[in-house]
Amino acid sequence: MSTGANAVAVTEPPPLLSHAGVHDARHRLAGRVVQTPVVRSEELERLAGARLWLKAENLQRGGSFKMRGALLAVERLTQAGSLGVVAQSTGNHAIAVAMAAAQHRLPAVLVLPTDAAPTKVRRIRETGAEVLQAGTTLAERIAVVEELRNTRGYDEIDPYQNPDVVAGQGTATAELLHQVDAADGRLDAVVLPVGGGSAVAGACLATAGQGIDVYGAEPSAVPALTEALRAGGPVTVDAKPTIADGLRPDRIGQLPYDLAHGAVTEVFTIDESAIAEAMRLVLLHARLLIEPAAATAVAGALRLAAGGRARDIGVLVSGGNVEASLVASLLDHQTS
Amino acid sequence: MSTGANAVAVTEPPPLLSHAGVHDARHRLAGRVVQTPVVRSEELERLAGARLWLKAENLQRGGSFKMRGALLAVERLTQAGSLGVVAQSTGNHAIAVAMAAAQHRLPAVLVLPTDAAPTKVRRIRETGAEVLQAGTTLAERIAVVEELRNTRGYDEIDPYQNPDVVAGQGTATAELLHQVDAADGRLDAVVLPVGGGSAVAGACLATAGQGIDVYGAEPSAVPALTEALRAGGPVTVDAKPTIADGLRPDRIGQLPYDLAHGAVTEVFTIDESAIAEAMRLVLLHARLLIEPAAATAVAGALRLAAGGRARDIGVLVSGGNVEASLVASLLDHQTS
Repeated sequence: MSTGANAVAVTEPPPLLSHAGVHDARHRLAGRVVQTPVVRSEELERLAGARLWLKAENLQRGGSFKMRGALLAVERLTQAGSLGVVAQSTGNHAIAVAMAAAQHRLPAVLVLPTDAAPTKVRRIRETGAEVLQAGTTLAERIAVVEELRNTRGYDEIDPYQNPDVVAGQGTATAELLHQVDAADGRLDAVVLPVGGGSAVAGACLATAGQGIDVYGAEPSAVPALTEALRAGGPVTVDAKPTIADGLRPDRIGQLPYDLAHGAVTEVFTIDESAIAEAMRLVLLHARLLIEPAAATAVAGALRLAAGGRARDIGVLVSGGNVEASLVASLLDHQTS
Repeated sequence: MSTGANAVAVTEPPPLLSHAGVHDARHRLAGRVVQTPVVRSEELERLAGARLWLKAENLQRGGSFKMRGALLAVERLTQAGSLGVVAQSTGNHAIAVAMAAAQHRLPAVLVLPTDAAPTKVRRIRETGAEVLQAGTTLAERIAVVEELRNTRGYDEIDPYQNPDVVAGQGTATAELLHQVDAADGRLDAVVLPVGGGSAVAGACLATAGQGIDVYGAEPSAVPALTEALRAGGPVTVDAKPTIADGLRPDRIGQLPYDLAHGAVTEVFTIDESAIAEAMRLVLLHARLLIEPAAATAVAGALRLAAGGRARDIGVLVSGGNVEASLVASLLDHQTS
C-alpha cells in the first residue's frame, strides 16, 4: 500500500568496511571526537629529508585514535539494548571503550595484560570501569573475555574484529587526507603502527583508490604482521619485550589481515633503539609527547624517507599515553 | 588635476598599535606562520576546574610565537633597504629574527645573555646568523646592540619597542579568539606570559573592546611588570634565577607598559615550583612539550581558575624551546 506524497526515500548506509563506510563513520563522529591537528616540524623534516605530516592523535580524547572506533561500537551496542561491554586490550582501546561506555552509562569491564602501562590502568579506573589483568598474551586475555561474556551477558568489543572499530580507526587516516588536501598538499604514502592491525586496516579502507601507498611499522620484537604476510594468514609470534606497549598483541586479527594483506606496500620492523629515538625526536623537535607505539610509525616514516621512495609522508601518531618515568629515562640516556 | 575614471582610492593601513592594526598584521602573516592548534585536555581541565584553551605556539615555526612579530619587522626593514639586523633577546625573539632574516637573505647578529639556553643558541647558529653573548642583564645586551648599530649600520629589531613586533605578537591572541569563536566557545579571560611585555601588550590590542579580561603571569623571581605597575612605570628589578629563561628580562619595555598598564586586570607572580609543575602537567596531560615561560602562563591560568573568576580561559602557550635535560629532571623529580 502506497503512503502517497509523504513517502520518504530511505538511503541504506554504505557497508562499514569500505571507503564510503569510513567516510560515513567520519560523519557519525563529527563533533564527538577532536579533529586533531596535523603537525609539521621544520627540524624533523630536515632530519628526515621528506615532508612529514604528523596526524596528532596523541591530542585525541582518551589520548589515542582508539576513541574513534570505541565511540561508534559502544553507540551501536547501546542502541541495541546492551547490558554492558567487555574488551581486551593492551591499553588504549580499553581506555577508549571505558570512556565511551561511561558516556553512554553502560557498565564496562576491561581486560589488560599484567604488564600494562600503569598510566593506562589508572585512566580506565578513573572512568568508573572495572579492570581485570590477565597474563601477557592475547590468548590469555581472550579467555577472560569469553568467560565474562558467558557469566555476565556483556557484549564484547573486539579491538581488531569489530567492523565499527576498524572503520572508526580508519577515520583518523581519512581526516588526515582531508587536512593535507586543505593545506594544498598531496601524500605519497601513509605509515601506520601495527599492533592487532585495526589502524592499518582502517587506513587501507580510507586510502582505497587514492593512489597513496600504505606502510605498516611494527616492533622487531613483535613482528605479527610481517610473519602473517609470510605465512599467508595470522600466526601467533614469539613476542619479545618492547617499550611499545600498545603494539604487544602477538597475533594480527583475521579481519585486519584480510583487509591489509593485498593493500599494504611494505611492513617495517623497528628495533627498540629506533623507537626510543623517534619518540625523543618528536618530543624535542615537533614538541609532542607521543607513546612508543606512535613513535614506531614515525621511525617507519624516517626509514621510508631515507629510502627516497616518498616525499610527502602521512604518519598516524596514534597516541600519547606514556609513563613519565619512560620519558625521563629516554631523555637522560640520550641527551649529550 | 583629475586622473579621471581611472582614479583609485588608496586605503591607508590602520595604525599598527590598535585592534585593527593587529587584524591587519594577521592578514599580512597569513600563510607565512602556522595557524597553530588550540589544544584542550579533559584531564587538565578536570584538574583546573575550568575550560583551558591552550594556544599551542610551541608548534609555531621557530618554536615560539615570536616568529610572528619578527617576520613583520624584518619584512618592513628589507623593503626599506636595510643592510642587516641586530636584536637582543633571551632566546626566542633571536631565533625568530634569525629565521626571518635568513628567509630575506639579510645578515643578522643576535645578542643573548651568557646563560642563554644552549638549544636556543644552537638553533640561531643553524640559520647562519651570528651570535654574541653578553652578560646576564638587559642593560648589558642593549649596550652591545648599540655598538653594532653604530659600527655596522645594522637596524635594531627591539623585542619590546618595535610596533611590528608588538602587533605581530598580538596576532597569536587574535587568532586564538577567532579559533575559540569558530568552536562556538567564548573566552572570559586570556593569560599571557610576561618577559619584556610584548605578548601581554599585543593581547591588550587584540582583545580591545571584546569584554575579555587580560592577565599577565611572570616568575616571582623577575616581577618586572608587577613592580612597574606599582612604581607607575618601568623599573629594573633585582632578578633572581628562574627556569623560565624566556622571562628573564629584568625590565618591562616602555611601549608594552604604556599599552598594558590600564588594560591588564592582574599580574600573577609564579614561583619556580609552580612553573615546573605546570610544565609537567601540560606534558603529561595535554601531551605538549612547552618551555617554562609558557608554563608560567599555564600556572597563572590555574591560579585564575582556582579563584573561580573565569570559566573559559585562553592561554598563550608561547613556546617549546626547552633543554632535554630540564624535561628529564622535572620528570625524574616529580614522578611517583
